[in-house]
Amino acid sequence: VKLKARIGIDVMGSDNSPADLLAAAASLLPSLPSAVELIAIATSDQETLAKSLGLGFLFAREVIGMEENPLLALRRKKNSSLYIGLRHLKEGNLDAFVSAGNTGALISAAKMVLGAFPKILRPALLALMPTKKRPVAVLDVGANLELKAKHLIQFAHLGIAYQKARGIEHPRVGLLNIGSEASKGTAEIRLAYKTLQTLPSFAGNIEGKAVFDGEVDVLVTDGFTGNVFLKTAEGIASLVLDRLSAHIPSTIRAHLDDLRKHLHYAEYPGALLCGVKGTVVKCHGYSTPQAFANGIRGAIEFSSIHFIEILKKELEKEGSFAYPES
Amino acid sequence: VKLKARIGIDVMGSDNSPADLLAAAASLLPSLPSAVELIAIATSDQETLAKSLGLGFLFAREVIGMEENPLLALRRKKNSSLYIGLRHLKEGNLDAFVSAGNTGALISAAKMVLGAFPKILRPALLALMPTKKRPVAVLDVGANLELKAKHLIQFAHLGIAYQKARGIEHPRVGLLNIGSEASKGTAEIRLAYKTLQTLPSFAGNIEGKAVFDGEVDVLVTDGFTGNVFLKTAEGIASLVLDRLSAHIPSTIRAHLDDLRKHLHYAEYPGALLCGVKGTVVKCHGYSTPQAFANGIRGAIEFSSIHFIEILKKELEKEGSFAYPES
Repeated sequence: VKLKARIGIDVMGSDNSPADLLAAAASLLPSLPSAVELIAIATSDQETLAKSLGLGFLFAREVIGMEENPLLALRRKKNSSLYIGLRHLKEGNLDAFVSAGNTGALISAAKMVLGAFPKILRPALLALMPTKKRPVAVLDVGANLELKAKHLIQFAHLGIAYQKARGIEHPRVGLLNIGSEASKGTAEIRLAYKTLQTLPSFAGNIEGKAVFDGEVDVLVTDGFTGNVFLKTAEGIASLVLDRLSAHIPSTIRAHLDDLRKHLHYAEYPGALLCGVKGTVVKCHGYSTPQAFANGIRGAIEFSSIHFIEILKKELEKEGSFAYPES
Repeated sequence: VKLKARIGIDVMGSDNSPADLLAAAASLLPSLPSAVELIAIATSDQETLAKSLGLGFLFAREVIGMEENPLLALRRKKNSSLYIGLRHLKEGNLDAFVSAGNTGALISAAKMVLGAFPKILRPALLALMPTKKRPVAVLDVGANLELKAKHLIQFAHLGIAYQKARGIEHPRVGLLNIGSEASKGTAEIRLAYKTLQTLPSFAGNIEGKAVFDGEVDVLVTDGFTGNVFLKTAEGIASLVLDRLSAHIPSTIRAHLDDLRKHLHYAEYPGALLCGVKGTVVKCHGYSTPQAFANGIRGAIEFSSIHFIEILKKELEKEGSFAYPES
């Protein structure tokens, strides 16, 4: 484990104030080795606070708002916190970059600045979710809304490489669908199924219910469905825990709180932007400062295990996968 | 409440044996008023068993299998249990029809035999799901995989009419999306949003997480996303309850079991095929016999409150809604 890491933290353009996010980042410092540096990227009015909290600081003249059109914003704001963070990541001044800002802008800028791995047509947002066995990597959870079969196939390879990089020797891949038969789903899903069938790791179509039994390590879906999947899981978990907590004696309430942490998206280390040449972690715009801190923790973990280098090698091994026309 | 009802029950073509489904239906009889008749629709080899269990019997020469192409099967099998049930429903010999057979065939046959209400372009499968407040009607949960804006708009009106028929005076409608802003989602969702905005009952876009807070009474979505939504909710609820049950003393395990019932799709009274002129309840092909019995119970409830007549009136009141071109 490499203990030296420089993590760039964009505290601008989310639903939380920069001050709250700076405080959240700083709260991690006591538990981090001194060779891990957290570097805030923000407008100059945040500099005094950031430094007083023990954070590094990179100055950004501009901010891209949550509601801005991503492509227009990127054309106009080359000095935004988002761009500056990604440029430093590209140049090797940072080992990872964390943002809770405009998702569309972050993804487009990451593609432009960092570039994607060979054969990766579109990067995806990947989230790790709990199951009855080990966690499943779900992708895409929101980067691409409407997808062709070739994108779904690419996500399968990306997910396999990701889980191999996490140490799972033979990850199994499922395609999120409304039934297990090959004939189920939209035309693009059926086409993806046909190609994926040739992969030894392919476990076929899988329904939302079965995912949580832990039968697959990678769950492939489009960004719209994946996002709904993620947030539905969060909502229903909260519903169940709320209903239960009324009936539960305090002696076992600790188990409930523990479970709540594991099932709340907010406790997850953000979503990894998977497929670009650099470790980029996206936190929800509405993330609590606590969740944002966990996103940073995730980024530190990714950079400490040289995740991107391993991912790159695994993708090379996955080799010469082909895409169908659709 | 009308205590006289004749419920047609198609016990063919599901993953369960006809004998198991006959037994499940018969298990309801002791708790039903004698004026409620349960009438099995099956091949002749089931007649002796059905009658010995106290069920009525309608003979069907043919069965449509789960894996059959719906349109081909309907063209060839005019004497299938599914067709026969729907024809009796149309002719008023039955008050409701329950099936766990081929979904595509059931929907197509229902449209052909029963017809749809005026302005209803496509019937939808509607499921009632639990929230922190009152249950939400989710449609479509699997009848139509790819939809235009006009179909989503129609589902909003159908959902409103449904909830009004259930006694909710001013149902609120949400559009399932990946963010609350009008700019979120696919092109068809954005177009639907624009038209729905003119409805006073429209609460805007809603995320999977917020649905369970109970802010809306109707959740509009396409059949692919809705099906994933439903099954994800079932899966995560099962995960949470499984993890918890290990830590829970037997004294409060009853609460857990109670909750499990409410959160398991299998405990729901099937999905209502909403929009056709007749009460048709679809149970999952993999429904347990117990869930199938609950589907029948739901159908009895629907017919006892003259649900279809109320729905028809509410749809007329909803009146002259218009569809955008897309």
